[in-house]
Amino acid sequence: PDANTIAVIPGDGIGKEVVPEGVRVLDAAAGAFGFELAYREFDFASADYWTRTGTMLPGDWFETLRGFDAIFFGAVGWPQVVPDHVSLWGSLLQFRRGFDQYVNLRPTRLMPGVASPLAGRSPGEVDFWVVRENTEGEYSSIGGRIFEGTERETVMQETVMTRVGVDRVLRFAFELAARRPRRKLTSATKSNGISVTMPYWDERVAAMAQQYPQVDVDQFHIDILTANFVLHPDWFDVVVASNLFGDILSDLGPACAGTIGIAPSANINPERRFPSLFEPVHGSAPDIAGRGIANPIGQIWCAAMMLDHLGHDAAGAAVLAAIEQVLARGPEQAPLTPDLGGSGTTAELGAEIAEAV
Amino acid sequence: PDANTIAVIPGDGIGKEVVPEGVRVLDAAAGAFGFELAYREFDFASADYWTRTGTMLPGDWFETLRGFDAIFFGAVGWPQVVPDHVSLWGSLLQFRRGFDQYVNLRPTRLMPGVASPLAGRSPGEVDFWVVRENTEGEYSSIGGRIFEGTERETVMQETVMTRVGVDRVLRFAFELAARRPRRKLTSATKSNGISVTMPYWDERVAAMAQQYPQVDVDQFHIDILTANFVLHPDWFDVVVASNLFGDILSDLGPACAGTIGIAPSANINPERRFPSLFEPVHGSAPDIAGRGIANPIGQIWCAAMMLDHLGHDAAGAAVLAAIEQVLARGPEQAPLTPDLGGSGTTAELGAEIAEAV
Ligand SMILES: CC(C)[C@H](C(=O)O)[C@@H](O)C(=O)O
Ligand SMILES: CC(C)[C@H](C(=O)O)[C@@H](O)C(=O)O
Repeated sequence: PDANTIAVIPGDGIGKEVVPEGVRVLDAAAGAFGFELAYREFDFASADYWTRTGTMLPGDWFETLRGFDAIFFGAVGWPQVVPDHVSLWGSLLQFRRGFDQYVNLRPTRLMPGVASPLAGRSPGEVDFWVVRENTEGEYSSIGGRIFEGTERETVMQETVMTRVGVDRVLRFAFELAARRPRRKLTSATKSNGISVTMPYWDERVAAMAQQYPQVDVDQFHIDILTANFVLHPDWFDVVVASNLFGDILSDLGPACAGTIGIAPSANINPERRFPSLFEPVHGSAPDIAGRGIANPIGQIWCAAMMLDHLGHDAAGAAVLAAIEQVLARGPEQAPLTPDLGGSGTTAELGAEIAEAV
Repeated sequence: PDANTIAVIPGDGIGKEVVPEGVRVLDAAAGAFGFELAYREFDFASADYWTRTGTMLPGDWFETLRGFDAIFFGAVGWPQVVPDHVSLWGSLLQFRRGFDQYVNLRPTRLMPGVASPLAGRSPGEVDFWVVRENTEGEYSSIGGRIFEGTERETVMQETVMTRVGVDRVLRFAFELAARRPRRKLTSATKSNGISVTMPYWDERVAAMAQQYPQVDVDQFHIDILTANFVLHPDWFDVVVASNLFGDILSDLGPACAGTIGIAPSANINPERRFPSLFEPVHGSAPDIAGRGIANPIGQIWCAAMMLDHLGHDAAGAAVLAAIEQVLARGPEQAPLTPDLGGSGTTAELGAEIAEAV
């Protein structure tokens, strides 16, 4: 069979340090399970590229990337050089939209060996997915400023939801819930305060629920939902949310599971018309970049999700199991990075997990 | 001196059960500290009123209430009878806007005797205020729907921020931070994703910070900020946020402190041109309403905040101390309600706190 083609984009900061470890583990998995991956690395979507060219991406990024089977992405953002809203709208958010990656999928899972900030919870008890709408909603760039520089200055920004956009992400979430043992779906809303778009969201959830009688559906307003992530993380199975609410929940969830330092995320075009993009939840971490101590597990967990997406399910499961096994050994027995209480380096931890695969 | 005039609005569900306990404690404080409170109770802003009249408020609500020194509010919302976005926009959100209560102030405080869901945190370690913008931002009612009922259906809703609106809530937050020992202010943003309104918010924070060199300012994007409430609640002192972000943070904060069942909130018009409104963070709780077991502490803590606002600082402090003292006794020694692990009733717990005052 042909090799899967992977565009590798390390980006900024620790992205450049953790991506090679992700590739190392991918190689180990490909070797162990007998398939091939063909990589090509790109230096755009980074502050360096911005400094050289004044743009975040080359003009032909769309054609350059669209033929790949997947994009393996590190992190973008280096505010000392380029403001975040410029670097992110100029790269990551372009990919999400250009390649119609309308699902952002992120797990929250208590892992062995990772201390949870929540009292008395243990691995197995907390294990759910956040399904985030990834192309519209609160992240529209429609809006502007009037009466600039005066006391009457006013800014406005539009939240835009479409039936197509809402229904397709709901469908993905309902399908996912229907395949899981608990078959439970929770919708994040705020229809009591956000009085136009959120009642619409609720309406579409109710309509979709009709088509999935086997799925048990509930909903919470986003304020109390964040509270319930902390108080009752065991309540959740699949949580579906708008772009902004999903953004919040998919950082909060992993934090409840101990650290956002190890959480992965998949930006998926389910129809596979375009490449999907896999990136850790953490950012470029300017504070620790360049020191070789960044935790590569988020990136490696992305590798597992990418393998699943490419149809190499057994390999994906093996990578996740390898992560769990190394974490379970603890900082005495495994070269865990400082954020996990160890003194291992990025490369040592990556090698250990590759070995376990 | 003249009595302070208080409009009492129990509203729906457990609002009707906890408000009398708040009044009981207010009376105890007035007796102990020698001042007078004159109450008048209103039955509007409730599902009963809606059923009778088809509106949430009488046409003259503004004139009726504007002369009061404060509004002591229970909870509104009874979705079986009237959809939440109707009942809330028809009452609570009218008060907030009509009376220009542009600050929503909510404490997060670990209380003795309340188990925190966070591992290893104890009272004193977590004690901060969320200052929420309360009249504009994401809660605008500007927006609508096009191509209704078709595949092209699209809804839009505008977030509106004004210089006046942003600056005045920032000023309140900076003033509060400047008076606190740690003098620290954290701004909630999302300027990397919400690309028009949030960069504006950041700009105004930066401008205001110039005027308060003594205040130590930082900012986090809302996604990682929610994570940090869980991972590092001790980092925070005063957190200032837009309407939506403040809504989320002021539920999440109290959840991290153990329960939103006891958290109070103040909707303040700092210039005192209009009455301020004091309401617990919890809602009308249809699931436990009518059983006499609702926890009245949120409402009683509101009484403490209202006394502070009316200038009866010593009385306010005494009410807060009474709450802490009764909580510290635990469910064996005090009639705590079931949510706190006891078997006390709403009235028993209210009476106990009134006694302690
Ligand atoms: C009931 C709802 C409209 C309200 C809000 O979102 O403002 C509530 O959650 C609050 O925080 O007071
Ligand atoms: C960097 C930022 C624009 C991005 C987002 O908000 O989508 C990030 O927080 C994420 O969750 O992937």
